Amino acid sequence: MENPVLVEVTRGPIVESFHRGSVAIVDGDGHLLFGVGDIERPSFPRSAVKPFQALPFVESGAADRLGFGDAELALAMASHNAEPRHVETVRAMLSAAGLDEACLACGPHWPARHADQGALHKADMKPGRIHNNCSGKHTGFLCTCAVTGADPRGYEKADHPVMREVIAAGASMTGTPHATDICGTDGCSIPTFAVAPRALAHGFARFVTGVGLTATRARAAERLRLAAAAEPFMVAGTGRFCTRVMTALGTRVLVKTGAEGVFIGAVKELGLGIALKIDDGAGRASEAAMAAILIDLLKLSPDDPGYDEMRQLSNPPVKSWAGETVGEIRVTGALGGLVG
Amino acid sequence: MENPVLVEVTRGPIVESFHRGSVAIVDGDGHLLFGVGDIERPSFPRSAVKPFQALPFVESGAADRLGFGDAELALAMASHNAEPRHVETVRAMLSAAGLDEACLACGPHWPARHADQGALHKADMKPGRIHNNCSGKHTGFLCTCAVTGADPRGYEKADHPVMREVIAAGASMTGTPHATDICGTDGCSIPTFAVAPRALAHGFARFVTGVGLTATRARAAERLRLAAAAEPFMVAGTGRFCTRVMTALGTRVLVKTGAEGVFIGAVKELGLGIALKIDDGAGRASEAAMAAILIDLLKLSPDDPGYDEMRQLSNPPVKSWAGETVGEIRVTGALGGLVG
Repeated sequence: MENPVLVEVTRGPIVESFHRGSVAIVDGDGHLLFGVGDIERPSFPRSAVKPFQALPFVESGAADRLGFGDAELALAMASHNAEPRHVETVRAMLSAAGLDEACLACGPHWPARHADQGALHKADMKPGRIHNNCSGKHTGFLCTCAVTGADPRGYEKADHPVMREVIAAGASMTGTPHATDICGTDGCSIPTFAVAPRALAHGFARFVTGVGLTATRARAAERLRLAAAAEPFMVAGTGRFCTRVMTALGTRVLVKTGAEGVFIGAVKELGLGIALKIDDGAGRASEAAMAAILIDLLKLSPDDPGYDEMRQLSNPPVKSWAGETVGEIRVTGALGGLVG
Repeated sequence: MENPVLVEVTRGPIVESFHRGSVAIVDGDGHLLFGVGDIERPSFPRSAVKPFQALPFVESGAADRLGFGDAELALAMASHNAEPRHVETVRAMLSAAGLDEACLACGPHWPARHADQGALHKADMKPGRIHNNCSGKHTGFLCTCAVTGADPRGYEKADHPVMREVIAAGASMTGTPHATDICGTDGCSIPTFAVAPRALAHGFARFVTGVGLTATRARAAERLRLAAAAEPFMVAGTGRFCTRVMTALGTRVLVKTGAEGVFIGAVKELGLGIALKIDDGAGRASEAAMAAILIDLLKLSPDDPGYDEMRQLSNPPVKSWAGETVGEIRVTGALGGLVG
């Protein structure tokens, strides 16, 4: 079964490229409100489940014991740009736990933005593990080790006590047993487990409604949700989709990107979780689709705060290098209607 | 009609993403030897037709009048990395024509490689138009203006005398009228015209066989083909697919990438042209598919020069940031068999 085309990329009068995928919108009880494409096909959620992966960091008391606030909680579920504030905050978190960046198991890569790359070049420095977009999440794991007394060495392995808690949180939130036959290795070297969009959406509905969660977990999820809304910069960075959406819509929504065309969202006032996967892995498509879904679910109109920003994100221009608009990215009718 | 899956991207035990597309392999007489997917659906070939776009530069005598050799001819059909030799050669070509980089109409973008970006950062410089990956092609247009006496201003517009020749070459080579209803604007600000993969493949079969071409055009095409084989670095750059393939296989093949998942190839000894388009625009898929097609068409075996390199290009690993292999990019059975 092929998934429908969700997003088209035009140039002049022609659809130049297009993206197929699947979307599930689910409530806290697991009822499917909208589904398109094969929403039962497991795929790796990658960084989209960082909010789940940050739960043990809060539930264990590590975040409180180290005196962390919204900025640190948001960074613990970030795919950040490695802008100065991201890097400095990671470093301060590690220091508070008596650790340093040599403890990070994620590999190095360049900061996302040319300005920050330039600062490294001018200092004749190579990027380090601290610049990895996942370094905040890894720091959450390491801080949890420090506070719970676990040896931080090997924290990225599936059999480490902290990683076992992280994996258990993902399995519990999605109702998907996290067994080895659905396990891959993420870009930042930790295990990732394939989950169907429908199960992923249900997990995020539960994350923002607390349905079926222990009181401890529901409280931790709520703190993480509010931290992302309070510090949207820390979840991604300048110009990034997650940051722009949560800046525009505040506490109404939680959104989180994952590599390879995954996006999750949750709408607090509706008690809904959203998960989508673009078949081919394209972020430009997952972003436009998620923005269009949120506009529709929230019934945003031009008078609403954030409307213009969300419209831009759902229908961005394609530009030439000279800055001329030569096409657009747009969602198709397959995303029309949604719920209610 | 949905195109078949041509390329899969795995992570651990799961196919994480996949890419659909179409492929046409055609001989100089226009006979289809292999076709998969909708090979009649027009799409923008983008930079894949740079070899056609460079024909007037040679046919007009401009390249010879300015004393240019293989390096300059290869650069005139390049999507280059803006490595120092690319940039210096563009500058020298412009200078030979009495022009400079201010004449370039392509917008600026950063060089492809961190090392070259770093050199600009350290000099507190921004990238210029000369760093645009298409600056060599644009310089070919400008040199043609200079030698033929055309005003270089506005050379990027469809009604400029040199651009009219460029457009006519594309229409003639592909047998596809280049009318406004199939015209978009390319990333480097010149017109691009949608062509079906089948017609594009036929054009490249004619390019390397000379079938149906005037003697002047056949000679120009042959010079361009040999220039790319002699100077594969100039067509792309360090580590790039086109450069690696033509370094590995020499004069046996011509390959050229285009944006949005287009790739063309031509095999001289078989007299065949190849064109493929990945629906979603992914370069990782167009590259793996083209490498696999060339291995199959040339019946490359482990004893053949270039075999190992081509196998790596057709089946590259997916790696974590720490350098561990965590998956692979691989072609599917839809590309199996091909011709004969």
